[in-house]
Amino acid sequence: MANAQGKHITPKVLKGFRDLLPESMIPKKKIIRTLERVFESFGFSPIDTPALEYTEILLGKGSGETDKQIYRFEDHGGRDVALRFDLTVPLARFVSQHFSELVFPFKRYHIAPVWRGENTQKGRYREFYQCDFDILGSDSINADFEILHVIRSGFEAIGCKDYMIHINHRRLLNAILAKFGKEAETQKILQTIDKIYKVGRDEVVRILIEDEGMNADTVNGILAILRLNENFSKDGVKGKEIFTVLEKIRDEIEDKTAADELLTIFRNLEKCGVLEHFAYNPAITRGLDYYTGIVFESFITDKMEFGSVCSGGRYDNLTGLYSKNAVPGVGASFGLDRLLSVLEDKQMLTKKNSVADVIIFNLDDSFIADYYLLAQRMQSAGINCEIVLSKSKLGNQFKLAERHGIRYALIAGGDEFDAERFNLKDIFSAEEKKAISIEEIITEIQTNKKVNS
Amino acid sequence: MANAQGKHITPKVLKGFRDLLPESMIPKKKIIRTLERVFESFGFSPIDTPALEYTEILLGKGSGETDKQIYRFEDHGGRDVALRFDLTVPLARFVSQHFSELVFPFKRYHIAPVWRGENTQKGRYREFYQCDFDILGSDSINADFEILHVIRSGFEAIGCKDYMIHINHRRLLNAILAKFGKEAETQKILQTIDKIYKVGRDEVVRILIEDEGMNADTVNGILAILRLNENFSKDGVKGKEIFTVLEKIRDEIEDKTAADELLTIFRNLEKCGVLEHFAYNPAITRGLDYYTGIVFESFITDKMEFGSVCSGGRYDNLTGLYSKNAVPGVGASFGLDRLLSVLEDKQMLTKKNSVADVIIFNLDDSFIADYYLLAQRMQSAGINCEIVLSKSKLGNQFKLAERHGIRYALIAGGDEFDAERFNLKDIFSAEEKKAISIEEIITEIQTNKKVNS
Repeated sequence: MANAQGKHITPKVLKGFRDLLPESMIPKKKIIRTLERVFESFGFSPIDTPALEYTEILLGKGSGETDKQIYRFEDHGGRDVALRFDLTVPLARFVSQHFSELVFPFKRYHIAPVWRGENTQKGRYREFYQCDFDILGSDSINADFEILHVIRSGFEAIGCKDYMIHINHRRLLNAILAKFGKEAETQKILQTIDKIYKVGRDEVVRILIEDEGMNADTVNGILAILRLNENFSKDGVKGKEIFTVLEKIRDEIEDKTAADELLTIFRNLEKCGVLEHFAYNPAITRGLDYYTGIVFESFITDKMEFGSVCSGGRYDNLTGLYSKNAVPGVGASFGLDRLLSVLEDKQMLTKKNSVADVIIFNLDDSFIADYYLLAQRMQSAGINCEIVLSKSKLGNQFKLAERHGIRYALIAGGDEFDAERFNLKDIFSAEEKKAISIEEIITEIQTNKKVNS
Repeated sequence: MANAQGKHITPKVLKGFRDLLPESMIPKKKIIRTLERVFESFGFSPIDTPALEYTEILLGKGSGETDKQIYRFEDHGGRDVALRFDLTVPLARFVSQHFSELVFPFKRYHIAPVWRGENTQKGRYREFYQCDFDILGSDSINADFEILHVIRSGFEAIGCKDYMIHINHRRLLNAILAKFGKEAETQKILQTIDKIYKVGRDEVVRILIEDEGMNADTVNGILAILRLNENFSKDGVKGKEIFTVLEKIRDEIEDKTAADELLTIFRNLEKCGVLEHFAYNPAITRGLDYYTGIVFESFITDKMEFGSVCSGGRYDNLTGLYSKNAVPGVGASFGLDRLLSVLEDKQMLTKKNSVADVIIFNLDDSFIADYYLLAQRMQSAGINCEIVLSKSKLGNQFKLAERHGIRYALIAGGDEFDAERFNLKDIFSAEEKKAISIEEIITEIQTNKKVNS
């Protein structure tokens, strides 16, 4: 069937959009499920919000840049609507709208696509997944600790070992700036320090002195307290040194709340035996004016060039735009697509185009019901079975298994069903086990599956 | 923070859209995961396609009605784009575009939202989930059998027992109409028969004779062969009678292919011991001109009023609009939201607003690290743990547990950690087990979890 002109429509996707074939979607689903399991293991519950919202709702907090990037249009009812560009604004609307229905602290996760019409670059898409989790309605420092602990558990569950979570505190920076009478210029100074990785320390000093007209002594004083001296480490402060450094900073500032909070968090991380995965990093400021407490970014240490794969922080009032009920919170977001790119680069993703663990060959259509009954026994044991639908030469069936990347082939005809003993071929090693029971087959495949999961 | 005028923006969603709070999203996630597990157990792999596509791609096959319902607009690059309104058209585009990369038979599932600007009615939304699975590139009748087998497995996995899958065959209808020389009017007759449940048999006869001008003998002849006589059953033909009826029809028609195919399918279903869940139903025709082989609908037998919760059929050429490579296939779609409504109506959904199995009370912030270490041991055993973030009166912590619907509370302070024996309170029964080990706690919670899953 072609269109009216008898011509085919060229199948293509929009620029900045993409299809995910099984070999990409299988590992993505696996990571999503792993993270969902981790979130739920800490009592975070799933929610969902519409992809399409009133533009007014979405842009309330949006910057001009966001405005240009948003997919916005008029719907059939003449409403000004837009596709969500993140999951935070819809969360703020959600919490305001359902305030009286929710039990606080409200812990939710939301893994869903968002859309931004921004210019496409390598690895940047106009449709991408966000993976957010937040604790709302708690100003306890234990909530901050929990978020960090969940990130750590997420990396562990995914199988990442070389990760590092860099933490800073917005109010610690404020306290330091207050010491120099520079509270009013906080935002400007933060945004400049935020560039230190990209442009280097010397350039940050130059910008603050020359472009921003700050006093050289003040700039050097601030950077010295922050340990952002000439030989500052991009890795931040690690291990026991964290406590020495933070206690020293604490001594030098008047408002000690932020330093105390950081110290409490790091001490609890140490007690949990996971301090090695955390750093105090004075250069992490997070651009957004949104954050008011801890801020953090996470890196895969041998792939720093990919940037942060999980970031977030604490905010005072999520819901201010929609409600008089101020809701503080703390949360983080895994950059799912970036994380996948890193894992792919580290060759940690198994590229398979089928989820099947075993393929049952079709020796004759008359055995079809038997094959499905056999499959059922393996499926009950958690084994995924593909059954060859059309009888063909055995050589072709082996070829199909290979093209699918399925390791095991189960071969059974009349004699095998009579004896209830079957043949299992390991296609990777070319070894064949003859006349074994279905229980032995299940054990063999399960053992292999566990090793490779 | 409020907007420029100092007023709050009223938090609301668009008409026909909705938020899912944890109590709705938890069961929805559970069903999605269950169906995904079933699809994968048969070797169906996940894929993903963009929410937004070129309008030309989406409307190629669309009817005028669809056209009006589609969310369509011009993007920043002046492209005519639209939100997908189903998952079948994107699949056709996907298979055409990636034809040379795919291994056929290509078995995929896709669970994702679609958007239609249609008028909202009770239980009809403008954003809803489709849950499609198809086998592409196989014209084997075993593929048809597999799709039906997967549907059955899906219902079983969800825990539905009272389901019935009604099957018919488009070419069986054609063969019967051919006998009366009415092939040319197939579509018209099919669409009229399709209404038999709604308007009754007498009205179908009246429409065909009076409105369509058909000969009364022909109409009665056709309906007689189809067993759609005066006392036809809405339940279709069941059990052994299926074979008697289909063999009788087979005798009366010239082209016996369709009857033979149905007979093969039903015989294999019988061999698998699942025939009780299937019916031959001559009144099922499926409106779309799209189908060319078997067609089917599935009902929860004590909730027929909800309509079909899983429908589909076989088609000759999915990709005709986009490619010269004709790809036949067979597939089905679970109506996820409708299925959830039915299960809710049957009170089969547990309404919980938290995924946590146990809540660990906070007796003092100094124990925070210990609580998380304790949680970690339970989490390794698959138990979801909520930890109370802020210390408060025990009464308040019990209240929090109750509001969350969490059954178990674990209570531990200094003495308990020293002795490594803890107190577990069953909030539902008000029973408390004192000074038990973490292993005993895990066993207790796991046992309860299994019973209620």
